[in-house]
Amino acid sequence: MTQIVVVGSIALDSVETPLGRRDNALGGSSTYFSLSSSHYTKTCLVGVAGTDFPKSALDLLQKYGIDLEGLEIKDGKTFRWGGRYKSNMNKRDTLYTELNVFENFQPSLPPAYRKSPILFLGNIHPELQLQVLHQMENHPLTALDTMNLWIDISRDSLLDVISKVDILFINEDEIRQLNGTSSILTAAKKTLQSGPQFLIVKRGENGAMLFHKDKLFIMPAYPIENVVDPTGAGDSFAGGFMGYLSTRNLKELSLKDYKNAMVHGTVMASFLVETFSTDRLVSVTRESIQHRVQNLLEMICVD
Amino acid sequence: MTQIVVVGSIALDSVETPLGRRDNALGGSSTYFSLSSSHYTKTCLVGVAGTDFPKSALDLLQKYGIDLEGLEIKDGKTFRWGGRYKSNMNKRDTLYTELNVFENFQPSLPPAYRKSPILFLGNIHPELQLQVLHQMENHPLTALDTMNLWIDISRDSLLDVISKVDILFINEDEIRQLNGTSSILTAAKKTLQSGPQFLIVKRGENGAMLFHKDKLFIMPAYPIENVVDPTGAGDSFAGGFMGYLSTRNLKELSLKDYKNAMVHGTVMASFLVETFSTDRLVSVTRESIQHRVQNLLEMICVD
Repeated sequence: MTQIVVVGSIALDSVETPLGRRDNALGGSSTYFSLSSSHYTKTCLVGVAGTDFPKSALDLLQKYGIDLEGLEIKDGKTFRWGGRYKSNMNKRDTLYTELNVFENFQPSLPPAYRKSPILFLGNIHPELQLQVLHQMENHPLTALDTMNLWIDISRDSLLDVISKVDILFINEDEIRQLNGTSSILTAAKKTLQSGPQFLIVKRGENGAMLFHKDKLFIMPAYPIENVVDPTGAGDSFAGGFMGYLSTRNLKELSLKDYKNAMVHGTVMASFLVETFSTDRLVSVTRESIQHRVQNLLEMICVD
Repeated sequence: MTQIVVVGSIALDSVETPLGRRDNALGGSSTYFSLSSSHYTKTCLVGVAGTDFPKSALDLLQKYGIDLEGLEIKDGKTFRWGGRYKSNMNKRDTLYTELNVFENFQPSLPPAYRKSPILFLGNIHPELQLQVLHQMENHPLTALDTMNLWIDISRDSLLDVISKVDILFINEDEIRQLNGTSSILTAAKKTLQSGPQFLIVKRGENGAMLFHKDKLFIMPAYPIENVVDPTGAGDSFAGGFMGYLSTRNLKELSLKDYKNAMVHGTVMASFLVETFSTDRLVSVTRESIQHRVQNLLEMICVD
């Protein structure tokens, strides 16, 4: 089994959307990613939580086979985030951010993690992402996610870590901002020249685009009747994407493998948005994933 | 050759977008549609223009083989529209609408048009669309486009004509409005029950969706580096869509034919948006259409 290591935030989120609200629910990039990728392979989580982190959440992560040797429980409170979505679910306001124990997070990989063939650097400070990369003892297939904050305050470190990874996940506004252009196509070309072999531009309810050399693959979102809460969709997408790749021969990955990874990422994100927090992400079965994969292929293929 | 009849507006548009402006340029739904479909088959235009309609515009339509027997030139001025697009090109303000000779348009089909196998009812008053339908002497494959104005002021007639057509083109906001729901999926189901066999929901820069029975096909827009002017994109899409269908055996149209029609509609719309007015739409060659069709298929297909 091709093991994945994920480094990222662990949070207790309070989220309000037009369809309801949920307080202090399990969230954070490494949580969404690992619960998504755990449907595909063994996932090792590196992160930090406070002593207030509920035992039920730990039990949940363990129930899905997530390796928690890299999870540090520190004196203090868990990272907390509060947000409210506007009516179209595409825009959200951050109501508060309490970094708490996450503020001094110094990721340290257990020895058993350091030779993992796949590494996902979730959205944390690029300096920390670099630290993690340096702890790896092989050359894992490495993917990176980031956010506008790091483009604003830590651009050089971000460009440095981007230059060292194979796959970059970034949303459409961020890639425009990173490259100083309103054209996604122009921005994508520039970023592909800066290091990553594969670039995934996330577009929320409009799906995602995969760029590789001069190739472009465009994927719509899976149509969902009622989107309840999109928080974590990007990380669940990345979890399905990297999870699918983990089932392939990493030495011989083809563009078709990456296109299928887009399909699996899209499907995992589609489950995530149907409920608050990780409710649906964890309850999904292998059969329901496969069913949506087939549906989605029919919805996008001409033949 | 399978002849298409199109009924719709003929306009002189003044359009301002973030990339420039153009005054009194050739526009109108039947114009965009016919210049698009003329790349596929003979197209017969039914519409009205004023005595101010430039000879150069008539020459252009004729140069592309468009049959103008159904074009009426009436004393008075041509329909004029002025609009301004916001920075993201998805929203526009109407600056003025002068109906002029279009106000009393009473479409009358020349006898040679009345047995055409394909009919496109462009966006005009649903009562006029019904009148045109009644003038047909066979049962043509009929498609309809509409707009929010008719949902507001002529809902019953609109529902009547929708119930009588095979294919409905409508944008995402309009289908929500028509069915009183924010969910496109729910709205599409309801509309499919009201008559049309095929429903195309247009989503601007996010592409279009094709609904048929319980099937859904999702098509992204063709990525264009610099969108200059999206005015007429929907009609150019419909022109490529119906134009492609005209090249197939109408008695044996399959879902795959309709999916390919989505591809061709998307490609024709992608040419249209690259310039103001119809500049690029008319200059496009068979080879460049085929080239983009191949590109687009690669961008959406997993295999």
